[in-house]
Amino acid sequence: MTERSEAQDALNAQFRAFLETHAFPMEREFLSRPFRELVPQLAELRAKVKEAKLWAPHLPKALGGLGLSLPEFAEVSAVLGESPIGHYLLNCNAPDIGNQELLHAHGTEAQRSQWFIPLARGEIRSCFAMTEPEFAGSNPVWMDTQAVRDGDDYVITGHKWFTSSAEGAAFAIVMAVTDPMAAPHKRASQIIVPMDAKGVVFVRNIPVMGEGGSDYASHAELRFESVRVPVTNRIGDEGAGFALAQERLGPGRIHHCMRWLGICERAFRLMVQRAATRELSPGEPLGRQQGVQHWIAECRAEMDAARLLVLDVAHRIEREGSHATRDGISMIKFHVAGVLQRVLDRAIQVHGALGMTDDTPLAYWYRHERGARIYDGPDEVHKSAVARRILAAAGMDVGRKTEDGRKRR
Amino acid sequence: MTERSEAQDALNAQFRAFLETHAFPMEREFLSRPFRELVPQLAELRAKVKEAKLWAPHLPKALGGLGLSLPEFAEVSAVLGESPIGHYLLNCNAPDIGNQELLHAHGTEAQRSQWFIPLARGEIRSCFAMTEPEFAGSNPVWMDTQAVRDGDDYVITGHKWFTSSAEGAAFAIVMAVTDPMAAPHKRASQIIVPMDAKGVVFVRNIPVMGEGGSDYASHAELRFESVRVPVTNRIGDEGAGFALAQERLGPGRIHHCMRWLGICERAFRLMVQRAATRELSPGEPLGRQQGVQHWIAECRAEMDAARLLVLDVAHRIEREGSHATRDGISMIKFHVAGVLQRVLDRAIQVHGALGMTDDTPLAYWYRHERGARIYDGPDEVHKSAVARRILAAAGMDVGRKTEDGRKRR
Amino acid sequence: MTERSEAQDALNAQFRAFLETHAFPMEREFLSRPFRELVPQLAELRAKVKEAKLWAPHLPKALGGLGLSLPEFAEVSAVLGESPIGHYLLNCNAPDIGNQELLHAHGTEAQRSQWFIPLARGEIRSCFAMTEPEFAGSNPVWMDTQAVRDGDDYVITGHKWFTSSAEGAAFAIVMAVTDPMAAPHKRASQIIVPMDAKGVVFVRNIPVMGEGGSDYASHAELRFESVRVPVTNRIGDEGAGFALAQERLGPGRIHHCMRWLGICERAFRLMVQRAATRELSPGEPLGRQQGVQHWIAECRAEMDAARLLVLDVAHRIEREGSHATRDGISMIKFHVAGVLQRVLDRAIQVHGALGMTDDTPLAYWYRHERGARIYDGPDEVHKSAVARRILAAAGMDVGRKTEDGRKRR
Amino acid sequence: MTERSEAQDALNAQFRAFLETHAFPMEREFLSRPFRELVPQLAELRAKVKEAKLWAPHLPKALGGLGLSLPEFAEVSAVLGESPIGHYLLNCNAPDIGNQELLHAHGTEAQRSQWFIPLARGEIRSCFAMTEPEFAGSNPVWMDTQAVRDGDDYVITGHKWFTSSAEGAAFAIVMAVTDPMAAPHKRASQIIVPMDAKGVVFVRNIPVMGEGGSDYASHAELRFESVRVPVTNRIGDEGAGFALAQERLGPGRIHHCMRWLGICERAFRLMVQRAATRELSPGEPLGRQQGVQHWIAECRAEMDAARLLVLDVAHRIEREGSHATRDGISMIKFHVAGVLQRVLDRAIQVHGALGMTDDTPLAYWYRHERGARIYDGPDEVHKSAVARRILAAAGMDVGRKTEDGRKRR
Repeated sequence: MTERSEAQDALNAQFRAFLETHAFPMEREFLSRPFRELVPQLAELRAKVKEAKLWAPHLPKALGGLGLSLPEFAEVSAVLGESPIGHYLLNCNAPDIGNQELLHAHGTEAQRSQWFIPLARGEIRSCFAMTEPEFAGSNPVWMDTQAVRDGDDYVITGHKWFTSSAEGAAFAIVMAVTDPMAAPHKRASQIIVPMDAKGVVFVRNIPVMGEGGSDYASHAELRFESVRVPVTNRIGDEGAGFALAQERLGPGRIHHCMRWLGICERAFRLMVQRAATRELSPGEPLGRQQGVQHWIAECRAEMDAARLLVLDVAHRIEREGSHATRDGISMIKFHVAGVLQRVLDRAIQVHGALGMTDDTPLAYWYRHERGARIYDGPDEVHKSAVARRILAAAGMDVGRKTEDGRKRR
Repeated sequence: MTERSEAQDALNAQFRAFLETHAFPMEREFLSRPFRELVPQLAELRAKVKEAKLWAPHLPKALGGLGLSLPEFAEVSAVLGESPIGHYLLNCNAPDIGNQELLHAHGTEAQRSQWFIPLARGEIRSCFAMTEPEFAGSNPVWMDTQAVRDGDDYVITGHKWFTSSAEGAAFAIVMAVTDPMAAPHKRASQIIVPMDAKGVVFVRNIPVMGEGGSDYASHAELRFESVRVPVTNRIGDEGAGFALAQERLGPGRIHHCMRWLGICERAFRLMVQRAATRELSPGEPLGRQQGVQHWIAECRAEMDAARLLVLDVAHRIEREGSHATRDGISMIKFHVAGVLQRVLDRAIQVHGALGMTDDTPLAYWYRHERGARIYDGPDEVHKSAVARRILAAAGMDVGRKTEDGRKRR
Repeated sequence: MTERSEAQDALNAQFRAFLETHAFPMEREFLSRPFRELVPQLAELRAKVKEAKLWAPHLPKALGGLGLSLPEFAEVSAVLGESPIGHYLLNCNAPDIGNQELLHAHGTEAQRSQWFIPLARGEIRSCFAMTEPEFAGSNPVWMDTQAVRDGDDYVITGHKWFTSSAEGAAFAIVMAVTDPMAAPHKRASQIIVPMDAKGVVFVRNIPVMGEGGSDYASHAELRFESVRVPVTNRIGDEGAGFALAQERLGPGRIHHCMRWLGICERAFRLMVQRAATRELSPGEPLGRQQGVQHWIAECRAEMDAARLLVLDVAHRIEREGSHATRDGISMIKFHVAGVLQRVLDRAIQVHGALGMTDDTPLAYWYRHERGARIYDGPDEVHKSAVARRILAAAGMDVGRKTEDGRKRR
Repeated sequence: MTERSEAQDALNAQFRAFLETHAFPMEREFLSRPFRELVPQLAELRAKVKEAKLWAPHLPKALGGLGLSLPEFAEVSAVLGESPIGHYLLNCNAPDIGNQELLHAHGTEAQRSQWFIPLARGEIRSCFAMTEPEFAGSNPVWMDTQAVRDGDDYVITGHKWFTSSAEGAAFAIVMAVTDPMAAPHKRASQIIVPMDAKGVVFVRNIPVMGEGGSDYASHAELRFESVRVPVTNRIGDEGAGFALAQERLGPGRIHHCMRWLGICERAFRLMVQRAATRELSPGEPLGRQQGVQHWIAECRAEMDAARLLVLDVAHRIEREGSHATRDGISMIKFHVAGVLQRVLDRAIQVHGALGMTDDTPLAYWYRHERGARIYDGPDEVHKSAVARRILAAAGMDVGRKTEDGRKRR
């Protein structure tokens, strides 16, 4: 793979060593116990992370982080992805990292001191409430949650689900319609809502892939029943909710895709190790099977190509900004999600029955990362978005506006 | 799809009605609670099945069943497969159905009265202990468990895993080497071992895809520590273990493949229903997306073709026996497992985030039926077996015997 | 594969023997010389076919054929497909077979005696002019060719391409708009046009996949410049053109799909033979490679399943008619075309460089049968058609009518 | 895509302009006439190339080239690949470019002045005779052609095929066994043989994908019947043939893969243009179909990722040499060949019937570039080679040496 700076290599090595010493040994427990039971143990490890000066690689040094650029952090994210608890330990896990970036860039002084600082320190957790059960996640401008202005307050009413990590969060950033009459992309705002505010109803953690979920590792259904928060809790301008959501997508996509490639690397190592040592008959390792060899080679090539693509997009975001790079940001979503699924599938097949068990993290990723092709907009939406821009550049009228402002395909 | 007799249609309709009334409504509970908690409720439903004269469709009428032929039962199996508890309710679930067929065909009078009759009545459950953690499941003649003759007893020592449904079973049928000096395919015998025999150690239920497992819905790791059973517990001749295992494969494969196609039908219905009703924007259902339409059409075609293939193999087993049909029996394994995986994957994608939840059975099947490509010999083994016979028929020397009797590819 | 009657087996054997003796040895010439140079040789073989009482298996005995039912002919079509000249030799090649069926069912006495009888005897050839370069073939109701009534004549003006086998044909059946004001599916009629009529301009044979084409093996671009034919040349009612085209699709699809499966069988045999005999190193045949084995097994399974699907559809057309079976007729189009492409691709890969040459028929099929996914409506159109009906049955409004009568997806 | 230097961009633009002005307009003729008829026209264009100072971008400036580095030339190769005659016009077409590089690096003074200089000037053409019909191309050390020392001469006897561009070549570089007793990888040498030497028998141009081939665009079968050449015609040391062949593979692979990506770019543009302009019904362009959009997006992502992978390997070859980069060199072979096939397949499907014709270059590439997965070692060999090294690094014994020196899988 491509040349990396020595500094980056050294940094990666530090993170890898930390994972090997502290994260990998905890995986069995992570895979077999509710997350909430592990929180104290994880807190101890987070303290070790701070001691080791590895905390929050994505945050500026002034804020206690490592001050890495986006491409630098991308490399680190791939290392952390090798453990299901890697990002959490470093306080660069979704959705907290996105909320940190948002508040850092757009929060008021008050918002920053009240919410951002403790979040950056890992003293609290947060969540991001956007998706609604009644509306397709693939159409982000179509939602029902309303924030009605009442004096200096918003009164928020709505129904959200797949609000990841809501259980135990100190606050949610809620996407809500503040002006139903505005153009579709200007209707919503992002508003900070303390989770202990009156009217925030925790309906349930949604059982996902057989797991009830708890604490950080959960996806909640929430109701907001006339929840009153001061207007000063709004992040950015009124109506800027969608634009802010778009903005967080760029770097967030890089984090996710590199995390997926980290998962791929770990799965690949496990697959190779299994193939090299598992015997089909005495003296005949599984890895001599041509079919297994082909899987290994195909995975390696796909992973290498995908990694270069993501890093290239990271550099372009830094150079040209998220908007100019939006096709790349969409492409890595579906492209890397596809690589991830194929690598995990093959790694499991090489492990045979063992691959179905929780004796390795493969089965965990296989089921939970199935979501990679769905969340943040299903692959299909991103493919169409990329293609429509390419076709428009070739002179095609890509469709009529419909009432709700979406281009028809 | 192909013409079915009216009698078959009527029978299928009866089973479908029973599932709709009794099984589908229980699914949420099945998906969220340990199986063992549901056993009493399921026992009530089993009583209803008997009342409705639907019990044990695969067993002769004289034994309380419906006396269906293999192709007839195949059709029923596809209906039952639409619910994760369908086969269990009818007492035709693996591994009990295989053990029933084995004891029915090869059991002594004593074995039949002691084990088969209560099993056929659903009064007890059973398991089948073959796979060993230290040996590749893809090489069934390579195992370590020994049954050493000691007077009129066998003393069994060994280590098994993925012994499905061992928790709560009354007995296991254990595959053990009775003559290590014999030719590889003649080394092992199948021996009935009561689960409460001294030395049967229940190590654990193996966590599979995030679930600990319990009772029927479990996969155990077992140790046999000098377990002593009378020689009369052996099924068939000494050394016949492998041959008997092969024999059970034919009809068992039909059951499984039709069950998978039943899962496909259910997933397909859910997918179509979702596509027809979920709106992307007001008045624009998801099913108008061309990509979704293509998935639906491809699934329908693949499912129809696969079903015809399985039924054809079922008829040929009836007409010509399992041995003559072994290529077909291998082919439906990997072919239908592939269809199953693709149908489930697409059904989940069409459901979006909902597909990841346990609000539908899709996620359950997605994770647990990943095993379809692994158990009963991974797909790759079956593909090579089919191809080697085709190539041998074309005059190729397919390989040398190795010491352990396997053909090298 | 499924049980066939002994009579069918005997018939298939006769056809196979004829091909082996007469068709296979001519293939090299077929692959290296223009078709027109082979016509005399082929005429001699056609005489032999008649002597052997194998002529026109699809036609009634009274008309000099074998009187086979659709499923019976389907089996024969698969045998004939094994040679690129099989159907031609038997006079059941497209487009003549479709034109024969059409004229047989819907021709007037005069049309039958003038055109059908010599066509059935193989004394003349014919073509079918439908597709137009300016309009997407996937929208069959959208065309420009007009047939304007003028007294007892039609005056036909239009531009057609991919009129297969036009060179050397005695007549074309031309699809032309007879009432531009009618509902879209009622606008066109099918009209017999002698190829030597004044105003029929043979523009060119369109070079396809590097071959200029000639005689039967060609695809012409034609212009109809005020071509005058008597109204009695119209087949069926005015405005029935589209309905008749639909009708011919059912049996025609069976012919094509079984021909494709015949190609698959031949390619499969060649692949197996090559794998069994080609050595990678001394004593190490290619067929011992696991990857090759997997391809062989996957091809066999896909081919068997596809064949059962096509035969099932053939039986259903006989039992219930083309309209009731239209989903099946669409499904086999894209499903079998996919199988065909995969089998040919793998057969070529197993042959290595030899597979690229014209020393086998594989390369010919690889390039020309790429069209299987395009002609008679691209796969995508058939997939959407199937899905829309399934979705409509599930209650979805599949789209609005547009001005030209097509449902929008 | 990734940042390129301005100089590179300018250079690419020059080449692109030249192609658009001179190469694209000649394509129809190229696709419809034998190459040999075009040679004079092409010679004129080559003269224009020299005038424009674009000649031989891969050669040092001192030798009349542009002196580009491997990564720089890689970029140019992608531009040239957009036309089927691009590389030929610039004198950087295979096999001449490989022969140039070989003679430049390893030729004696005499060899360079006699063969290399006129080759570099484009005054003569050359070929490379390695593959033999009786031996699998995937095992390069297994061949039959012998060069027996007789005084100061070699007497060469053997049978070669797929010697591309032999017709019209001034000389061949022939791979022949010079020491049958040596270790397998030391048996052969590369020897210059003038094509007019006594005993060089031109058997035929092998018809490939329906084309007889001529001049540069041909693949010959040759026999060497006691062809006598001086020992000084040997390139490099005796026994170095295989090592030299390996060495040429690295840069040659970059050329090929970037040429393939150039083909992809052109096919992609054609596909997008067609989708943007072809109407399915009035006002409804094909590009609004979601399926077409998804193909476009997937192609774009795969092409971008593949390009980054190839460029990365090019940089690594420059930095670390071919040997250290051999896994990358193998990976780009099969990875990019796969991308190429998928892009061409989709581009044809979007074009419908037009895609089957020779009115675009798509059909030409579709059939001839099918060889991309076969020549220079089939994909499967490269996959296994990569995997075996990965597995060996993980401690696996990848196989035993067989008599002929190949590792068994």
